[in-house]
Amino acid sequence: MKARVQVMLKQGVLDPQGEAVRHALETLGFDGVESVRQGKVIELELAETDAGKAEATVTDMCEKLLANTVIESYAVEIA
Amino acid sequence: MKARVQVMLKQGVLDPQGEAVRHALETLGFDGVESVRQGKVIELELAETDAGKAEATVTDMCEKLLANTVIESYAVEIA
Repeated sequence: MKARVQVMLKQGVLDPQGEAVRHALETLGFDGVESVRQGKVIELELAETDAGKAEATVTDMCEKLLANTVIESYAVEIA
Repeated sequence: MKARVQVMLKQGVLDPQGEAVRHALETLGFDGVESVRQGKVIELELAETDAGKAEATVTDMCEKLLANTVIESYAVEIA
């Protein structure tokens, strides 16, 4: 079973990486880019076959390792 | 208009970051994690209002800056 986790900095937390990308795009001549936020995506291949259990496990992984919940939010998708 | 770009290492390209996450999960006691791939996600807020044009622009951004197309693949979503 596949799981996909998206981890983004929370709204209000400064994102210097995203800001660097926005600036680089501007330098390359891309106008009209109002804001850029950069995050990470983690794709997991799990042995678990039950979608509910897989989602619970992956949420636990996010809380313990994958996301820093003080400054980051995460979203889990099971496919 | 919002755009979302997901950039992942291509299949077959070694992903040491994903492998480090897999190992850390194992150490924390999460069994049954067969593989982990880590990539990045970039969310853009664009002034453009035409979805087709926005998609073309963002694809151009990926080719020129956001992805290293030798080793990375990307997917663009317009929302």
